[in-house]
Amino acid sequence: MNSRQVRSLLQKVAAGETPVVSALRELKHLPFSEMTFARLDTHRALRTGASEVVFCSGKTPDQIVKIFRRFAALEQPVFATRAEPAIFDAVRAALPRARWYETARIIASGSFPRPRGRRAILVVSAGTSDQAVAEEAAVTASLLGSRVERLYDVGVAGIHRLFRDLKRIEDAAVLVVAAGMEGALPSVVGGLTSRPVIAVPTSVGYGANFRGLSALLAMLNACAPGIAVVNIDNGFGAGFIAHRIARN
Amino acid sequence: MNSRQVRSLLQKVAAGETPVVSALRELKHLPFSEMTFARLDTHRALRTGASEVVFCSGKTPDQIVKIFRRFAALEQPVFATRAEPAIFDAVRAALPRARWYETARIIASGSFPRPRGRRAILVVSAGTSDQAVAEEAAVTASLLGSRVERLYDVGVAGIHRLFRDLKRIEDAAVLVVAAGMEGALPSVVGGLTSRPVIAVPTSVGYGANFRGLSALLAMLNACAPGIAVVNIDNGFGAGFIAHRIARN
Amino acid sequence: MNSRQVRSLLQKVAAGETPVVSALRELKHLPFSEMTFARLDTHRALRTGASEVVFCSGKTPDQIVKIFRRFAALEQPVFATRAEPAIFDAVRAALPRARWYETARIIASGSFPRPRGRRAILVVSAGTSDQAVAEEAAVTASLLGSRVERLYDVGVAGIHRLFRDLKRIEDAAVLVVAAGMEGALPSVVGGLTSRPVIAVPTSVGYGANFRGLSALLAMLNACAPGIAVVNIDNGFGAGFIAHRIARN
Amino acid sequence: MNSRQVRSLLQKVAAGETPVVSALRELKHLPFSEMTFARLDTHRALRTGASEVVFCSGKTPDQIVKIFRRFAALEQPVFATRAEPAIFDAVRAALPRARWYETARIIASGSFPRPRGRRAILVVSAGTSDQAVAEEAAVTASLLGSRVERLYDVGVAGIHRLFRDLKRIEDAAVLVVAAGMEGALPSVVGGLTSRPVIAVPTSVGYGANFRGLSALLAMLNACAPGIAVVNIDNGFGAGFIAHRIARN
Amino acid sequence: MNSRQVRSLLQKVAAGETPVVSALRELKHLPFSEMTFARLDTHRALRTGASEVVFCSGKTPDQIVKIFRRFAALEQPVFATRAEPAIFDAVRAALPRARWYETARIIASGSFPRPRGRRAILVVSAGTSDQAVAEEAAVTASLLGSRVERLYDVGVAGIHRLFRDLKRIEDAAVLVVAAGMEGALPSVVGGLTSRPVIAVPTSVGYGANFRGLSALLAMLNACAPGIAVVNIDNGFGAGFIAHRIARN
Amino acid sequence: MNSRQVRSLLQKVAAGETPVVSALRELKHLPFSEMTFARLDTHRALRTGASEVVFCSGKTPDQIVKIFRRFAALEQPVFATRAEPAIFDAVRAALPRARWYETARIIASGSFPRPRGRRAILVVSAGTSDQAVAEEAAVTASLLGSRVERLYDVGVAGIHRLFRDLKRIEDAAVLVVAAGMEGALPSVVGGLTSRPVIAVPTSVGYGANFRGLSALLAMLNACAPGIAVVNIDNGFGAGFIAHRIARN
Amino acid sequence: MNSRQVRSLLQKVAAGETPVVSALRELKHLPFSEMTFARLDTHRALRTGASEVVFCSGKTPDQIVKIFRRFAALEQPVFATRAEPAIFDAVRAALPRARWYETARIIASGSFPRPRGRRAILVVSAGTSDQAVAEEAAVTASLLGSRVERLYDVGVAGIHRLFRDLKRIEDAAVLVVAAGMEGALPSVVGGLTSRPVIAVPTSVGYGANFRGLSALLAMLNACAPGIAVVNIDNGFGAGFIAHRIARN
Amino acid sequence: MNSRQVRSLLQKVAAGETPVVSALRELKHLPFSEMTFARLDTHRALRTGASEVVFCSGKTPDQIVKIFRRFAALEQPVFATRAEPAIFDAVRAALPRARWYETARIIASGSFPRPRGRRAILVVSAGTSDQAVAEEAAVTASLLGSRVERLYDVGVAGIHRLFRDLKRIEDAAVLVVAAGMEGALPSVVGGLTSRPVIAVPTSVGYGANFRGLSALLAMLNACAPGIAVVNIDNGFGAGFIAHRIARN
Repeated sequence: MNSRQVRSLLQKVAAGETPVVSALRELKHLPFSEMTFARLDTHRALRTGASEVVFCSGKTPDQIVKIFRRFAALEQPVFATRAEPAIFDAVRAALPRARWYETARIIASGSFPRPRGRRAILVVSAGTSDQAVAEEAAVTASLLGSRVERLYDVGVAGIHRLFRDLKRIEDAAVLVVAAGMEGALPSVVGGLTSRPVIAVPTSVGYGANFRGLSALLAMLNACAPGIAVVNIDNGFGAGFIAHRIARN
Repeated sequence: MNSRQVRSLLQKVAAGETPVVSALRELKHLPFSEMTFARLDTHRALRTGASEVVFCSGKTPDQIVKIFRRFAALEQPVFATRAEPAIFDAVRAALPRARWYETARIIASGSFPRPRGRRAILVVSAGTSDQAVAEEAAVTASLLGSRVERLYDVGVAGIHRLFRDLKRIEDAAVLVVAAGMEGALPSVVGGLTSRPVIAVPTSVGYGANFRGLSALLAMLNACAPGIAVVNIDNGFGAGFIAHRIARN
Repeated sequence: MNSRQVRSLLQKVAAGETPVVSALRELKHLPFSEMTFARLDTHRALRTGASEVVFCSGKTPDQIVKIFRRFAALEQPVFATRAEPAIFDAVRAALPRARWYETARIIASGSFPRPRGRRAILVVSAGTSDQAVAEEAAVTASLLGSRVERLYDVGVAGIHRLFRDLKRIEDAAVLVVAAGMEGALPSVVGGLTSRPVIAVPTSVGYGANFRGLSALLAMLNACAPGIAVVNIDNGFGAGFIAHRIARN
Repeated sequence: MNSRQVRSLLQKVAAGETPVVSALRELKHLPFSEMTFARLDTHRALRTGASEVVFCSGKTPDQIVKIFRRFAALEQPVFATRAEPAIFDAVRAALPRARWYETARIIASGSFPRPRGRRAILVVSAGTSDQAVAEEAAVTASLLGSRVERLYDVGVAGIHRLFRDLKRIEDAAVLVVAAGMEGALPSVVGGLTSRPVIAVPTSVGYGANFRGLSALLAMLNACAPGIAVVNIDNGFGAGFIAHRIARN
Repeated sequence: MNSRQVRSLLQKVAAGETPVVSALRELKHLPFSEMTFARLDTHRALRTGASEVVFCSGKTPDQIVKIFRRFAALEQPVFATRAEPAIFDAVRAALPRARWYETARIIASGSFPRPRGRRAILVVSAGTSDQAVAEEAAVTASLLGSRVERLYDVGVAGIHRLFRDLKRIEDAAVLVVAAGMEGALPSVVGGLTSRPVIAVPTSVGYGANFRGLSALLAMLNACAPGIAVVNIDNGFGAGFIAHRIARN
Repeated sequence: MNSRQVRSLLQKVAAGETPVVSALRELKHLPFSEMTFARLDTHRALRTGASEVVFCSGKTPDQIVKIFRRFAALEQPVFATRAEPAIFDAVRAALPRARWYETARIIASGSFPRPRGRRAILVVSAGTSDQAVAEEAAVTASLLGSRVERLYDVGVAGIHRLFRDLKRIEDAAVLVVAAGMEGALPSVVGGLTSRPVIAVPTSVGYGANFRGLSALLAMLNACAPGIAVVNIDNGFGAGFIAHRIARN
Repeated sequence: MNSRQVRSLLQKVAAGETPVVSALRELKHLPFSEMTFARLDTHRALRTGASEVVFCSGKTPDQIVKIFRRFAALEQPVFATRAEPAIFDAVRAALPRARWYETARIIASGSFPRPRGRRAILVVSAGTSDQAVAEEAAVTASLLGSRVERLYDVGVAGIHRLFRDLKRIEDAAVLVVAAGMEGALPSVVGGLTSRPVIAVPTSVGYGANFRGLSALLAMLNACAPGIAVVNIDNGFGAGFIAHRIARN
Repeated sequence: MNSRQVRSLLQKVAAGETPVVSALRELKHLPFSEMTFARLDTHRALRTGASEVVFCSGKTPDQIVKIFRRFAALEQPVFATRAEPAIFDAVRAALPRARWYETARIIASGSFPRPRGRRAILVVSAGTSDQAVAEEAAVTASLLGSRVERLYDVGVAGIHRLFRDLKRIEDAAVLVVAAGMEGALPSVVGGLTSRPVIAVPTSVGYGANFRGLSALLAMLNACAPGIAVVNIDNGFGAGFIAHRIARN
């Protein structure tokens, strides 16, 4: 342990065994002290509120299972996003109590913090096809410990459906709004609330949608203030920052 | 005149001066008969409902004045789009009765058809900055002979303002909707009406707007059906096709 | 039912049980009255002319079958676009009288309005590969109740074939023009008619076609006026707005 | 006033002059009741915390002055972003007490809420050229009523400068991070804090920067979670949402 | 036949049965005379030098076989590009004498014109991966009747290999140069010859190649004059125009 | 002179002063012999048919004048493209007999080859705004020694105007077709001729034109075979390759 | 051999059998002397340090095996990049001593130079998903004869991990830094070292990553000087140039 | 000085005034010790070889002059890139001995290290318009202390000019190759040398050049290995990394 090394050095200084000049030189040569980093790593764990989140894309079921087993052994919670059914089958074979959020494509294992907070995060989605991304956001925020509510299928082409829930829109701590195609929903929602809005463009669409680019650009250009945007289809990122905002 | 040539050929056939075989060969060698084209050109004039529209960009004031003088001499109406004030000054110096639609950047001269039609074209715009494009559409359709109404400054961030005029939206013959930034307005309007909607993206915005690209892509991906799109800032084109639809 | 609530409130006012001031306050707090929305939803159904259109992409055969069964039970017509053969097989197994428009990739079930209108919608396509998109437009407009005619395989490289049907082009209520590659056909057609033209870029092509981008940009820049554009491969959208224009 | 109309209707019901059925029908025909909208507009004012923010681009000094005068007459605060010096000269000539935030390019007039909140918004910027955007965010949040701190010139090429202020990074309510060129700073900051980070790409750079596109894409792809992005150079938007988050 | 109609009309004029005025009116109403089009269609066949070329992409083996059979019945030559092996198997089963140019992915059937011309078309390719496109050009030009020579694998990274064949480069009638990746070869070749150069970008590459975009842009910006470009991977188009140039 | 060096070396070998082995070694070390290059440089002059063409963009009037003076001193012809009027004024002050092709923005000085060739190059343009580019092509080809004809203002929106000159289109040696906006003209012309077509996209247009990109992509995707494309606005390049093709 | 031809010519000159003038003429007609090219080809082999590197993409296992066999017969080393497992199986079946670098996707056969150099190349990677590209660089440089060290999984979101190895970063001869997503790592590393940095963007990411474009643009815009970039996923290219730099 | 604080702390430990435990805690709370950073900052100065380089874009002449004055006072060298003539005028007025590299747009003041190194950096440029960027690289590397040679105007359209200097290309320590338009020169040079090549795309060109994008993509896709790329027009960056490589 480096902390012990420093303690030992200080003890030698206290004991007069090491002159101050030598001790100073030695401390200078520790480029970035281990203590600092240990502290940083600990902070990191504290910060995210979950020891680890696994992004499944590009990993084999075996790799995922190994990670889940390690955390189960540590009795720490863990969850994985973008999980295909085959991955869940493998995880459940190893850890029968693992949970499967099918629409969200999330696997969770272990005991997560209980959702709390007076005001909920409201996750809003435009069309049924945007629901997978919306659920990724909702389940993520929920597993991290936020209270989450949902308001789905309120796309701008039937804008009146949105107005039925005006009160929930106004009362949320923060809103996550997922939409594909023209990505107009965050602008409309942003005009109806005084809460921060996290917009998630989805890759739902075809042709001049360019795999989510149209929704992304629309949201970055939203005329209503109070909106910030995450990457295309990044439900996890939206849920994560929404949790941070709500927890503030 | 080619028509005369054909007549003369037929007269010779009738008179027995030219054998049928020779006449047939001669007719075959006229690649596309002039008559046909004359007819096409005439139709063209009839079709547009205005003999000529001038696109000012890239033309000098002198060139514009010349065109206006020619039409004035023919006692035919003419109008010019994308006209800078300097151009209007030049035109008015030559033709004191020329009219200047300042916001629309349109100069008109001569006597235009009186607007008619039971149902009006409703021109809708999102923000005050989109108004120039909206006015280009409105004045164009009006000069071509359509009845035009306006509903301005009803952007999606304050969507409730739009609902005050729900009846006008439902009763229009066709709607022209101009919006920049995220270009969401046509989707919302399209969800509220059963009339065809012509969407005009404007280049209003900055950064990831990419000079109107964000609004253009959004409108092409509009989730509400019944919407078609014209080029960025193409108020003239929107007004023109709206007139054709309304006149149907 | 909210309508009942209002009625009940009014009855209490009439009976003197509720003072006017309280009733006014109560009415104020209904953010957007249910009545309004009910009315909007009803209008929506009236407007489209078909209760529902299903977009198959991203849906399972099971989901599609369920939707078709629901509408069959309601004795209402329904049709689905972008349907793969496997979907049709599943639908026909459930509803033997479902119809399959193979080229258009559309499945229809139930009794649709009889096509009417003095002038037909003319659907024009450039090459044989654009035909799927053209058919999607034609069948859509037809099922919605418009009279539809077709003029296929008249690409600009053999432009003379187009001229044989000049009269039909002039007489149509509105034209839908589908083309891939350089997307030039709408410009040419637009120069030959006084009717509104809805241009549909198709993703037919390769290389610098960029999946339909070349045709899309060409159509947005069409030099002939009277043209508006829908999304790449969006035959449904073109047929839908053409029906709205023709029905005007 | 519509509110009066409803009251009058209710009074007639109470008086037995209007039967309940007629009153119900009349209420049904109010498409979206004026009350609702009045309420929405009032809410809107409450929500933003400032009656009005003016975006100067595309407006003349005269127009800006007019807006400032109106708010001064109402004794309400107002501020304007993207203000060129010429605009400030015009405003100060009319309102000698108007204030000029030169780097932020913001003009403010009137009495703004006093900044409050236990934790401050920390505005971080990468290079000196990003400072204008960072200041737009800082001044915006400050005028809206948030407490703001600044940490400037800590670009990733000299990443060690950032570490000196680790504690302020950890203690902020929310961070706004502005960076141009490769836009890497939000990722690094996001890895050091458990607070939400609002990233602002700036158009600082040249060549393959494509006017801020490189920074924008980098930020949308940030590997650290807890980051959301606003439009290129949109310091106002970043300051606005940061204020909403901090105020939660 | 329209030609017969016109002849019959002329005969009636000659016989005095039809007055000149009526004949003139009738001729005027033929929008574009059938004669003209017939002539155009005939010309079309003459022009291409081959009655038909089939683009296989998006066609089934059955469709291809049908086309080949029709031309075989007419004793006319036909060839098909972008043919997968499965298509050739199907064609050969039907027409055992069909030929298969494997690298070029071309199937040919029937008797083609014998290559002629004093100067040959020289087809040059950069790397082995560009050879499929180069061969498509070479076989196309050859089947159309041009004499073709090949100079392969002379990419700019080993530019000295190119110089060994300087004389052939100078003596060709026209050069087709296919290259992927950075697409630099046409510039180098263009600097060594006084003959027209047709550049074909190929989609060979990865990453920032963007499926041929890098080579396409490079060739459009070639600093050597005398170069024109066809679409990415369009070996057929390059061979076709090279044949037209060589045949001049 | 290197040629002299080699001669001298050979003379020494002949005289027995230098052994064969030494001479061989010496020859080997000439990396690429000067002779070869001299020959290449001479060829270069022969090839272009004009000793020099100057591209004015980015050069000062002084630099242009210097180049013109040098060629005048050598009694060799020279011409300059993209010349602003100020440049011509400077050149004419120095060389009063210099010629100014205003629309083409070309300055020429000296005695050029007399245009020859049985068949002319036909330069076709779509709109009046494309004329500058078309003229650059026409004047370039003409100064290089080709016979040039013009067919202007035959855009596809008035396609019938094109047909009047069908014979000239068929009889040209090669066609240069300049068009902006949707860039459709080359496809149509390509379908009417059996001659090679060089397409020049122009940057005429706005919005989704993206400074000529729409026309460029359209031309690269032209459905008519026999078309190759040069850079946007590159009239010089089109005229140059057309001359090379015509001269074949 | 051409070298022999020249020797023979010189011998004839020495013997007086060939006059100097004839010899000179003959030498002149060798466009680029074979000697030169032979020399160039030899140099080429010397330069790369390996006779051949094979890029597997687009080649069949059979073709790869053939190349490996040829080099084995010549007792020369060879290695292949982008090798799928199936290719390695085929190669090992033929050459049992071939080696498989699984993560790097490289197959090597034969005896390679022993790594040398006082300072090593340090290959740094951001995330585990970037490791394949990093390994391609590391194994490439190693096989070419450079000493290579690795520093993996030090992405900017946990920037403190990077500081632990500050000394290795400062002592490397050159650094290769591979990163996907926002591509920020090279900027940070570049700020910590005085050695040249070769940045490799990887295609790791999704959505607005656009297959590596975000990382590529970020690296090209790196604010730290001393960084140059290779193509997306081009680990081979990075390892190759790093070897050249280290070997200097 | 923090170093003094640590010394003082150690002295107190040595004197028994501070217990080891307290000293340890205090050291732990220094997040990243100032010593480390001081060391980093010193290193930074050592590393670049010049205390400071100023990027003029976006700075006023006044700001530049201030920076130059500060370094003059410190008797340290400084240079500024992208300097407009007006800036040099201002600097020279303040510091009469400042030097102006006009083509490179660089101002230098103070005494720079004498260029050294057995092998020079060879800066190669394609056309005369690329020379400004090439000179920026050459002067930068030279001021940093490298020996620099130049080889200009050897574009690929006259590739033979390049071969005259084959030996210099082979003998350089590293090559910087600047080219615009199709950006092909680095590929050709890369094939002729065994030295590392730094490619600099320039924005020279028009149309499909897209302000340097064509050259950038070409260079990233260079088929010759041993090439890495810097940002468009980034002569400074190229010179900087070339210096680092040469100094190795």
